[in-house]
Amino acid sequence: MESYQVERLKINYKTLEEFTKFHEYGLPELSMLDDLQANMIENDSLSPFYGIYRDGQLAARISLYRVDAKYDRYFHPAQDHYEIWKLEVLPQYRGQGLGQALVAYAKSLGLPIKTNARRRSDPFWVKMGFVPVHYDPARDRGESPYVWLPAGAELRD
Amino acid sequence: MESYQVERLKINYKTLEEFTKFHEYGLPELSMLDDLQANMIENDSLSPFYGIYRDGQLAARISLYRVDAKYDRYFHPAQDHYEIWKLEVLPQYRGQGLGQALVAYAKSLGLPIKTNARRRSDPFWVKMGFVPVHYDPARDRGESPYVWLPAGAELRD
Repeated sequence: MESYQVERLKINYKTLEEFTKFHEYGLPELSMLDDLQANMIENDSLSPFYGIYRDGQLAARISLYRVDAKYDRYFHPAQDHYEIWKLEVLPQYRGQGLGQALVAYAKSLGLPIKTNARRRSDPFWVKMGFVPVHYDPARDRGESPYVWLPAGAELRD
Repeated sequence: MESYQVERLKINYKTLEEFTKFHEYGLPELSMLDDLQANMIENDSLSPFYGIYRDGQLAARISLYRVDAKYDRYFHPAQDHYEIWKLEVLPQYRGQGLGQALVAYAKSLGLPIKTNARRRSDPFWVKMGFVPVHYDPARDRGESPYVWLPAGAELRD
């Protein structure tokens, strides 16, 4: 597999323009644009997004949100972990391992990871070493949660 | 607009077979199947899903999860509300108002509703009378929350 450079994305007009090409575009992105326009955040502030550029454009992205231990509902003992959102590869760059490279980057951070396997993406997450949790309707509310556990981390019962 | 009959779906092998046709199929559905096979729930138990049948098959579905006031993070004062998940219409039945009928049914229950506007579905939710909330990264974690407020209900600041 080719190795790709994963970069933390900075919030600026160029990045926000790149984001408009992705299917998952909503309040998180609009909120960044509002904050930038209102000078509530500085240009080039760090975003929760990481990405891979190809041919001079953002080809794939992932949102890695660090969840504080006090909000942990998945691991034992409760601990800081990452939640993966908005993993998306532009259509013309699919099948080249970019999604895998982004998830490998997330795992390299060494904390447990929780994600929601949407739209029948379960085989992808299993290939990446994730496992399904026991579905709890009150906690998971329609999600299909998958987690990745680094050495020593355990699932909550 | 044609009027459609919205039915609460019962958990049985027929319903679970219908669910396999939908793109959003994951742990919630597999969990129902497991519970049924293990006799942990009775055949024809009530599910959190509602649907519309056309031509003898499930053509559209919605998951309406009732969230207890103590878990409310959106409304003021904190109150019981519904969370909409997995609103999906099979491709051959799109453009006929089935999605609108399911959301209208949810609104008829009289409680506030929260949903996540995914994949650029914002115009649909706006047409249905929903409004975007102010995005809060710690609460919303990458979602695009939209809410519907019945008379007298208010958003939390």
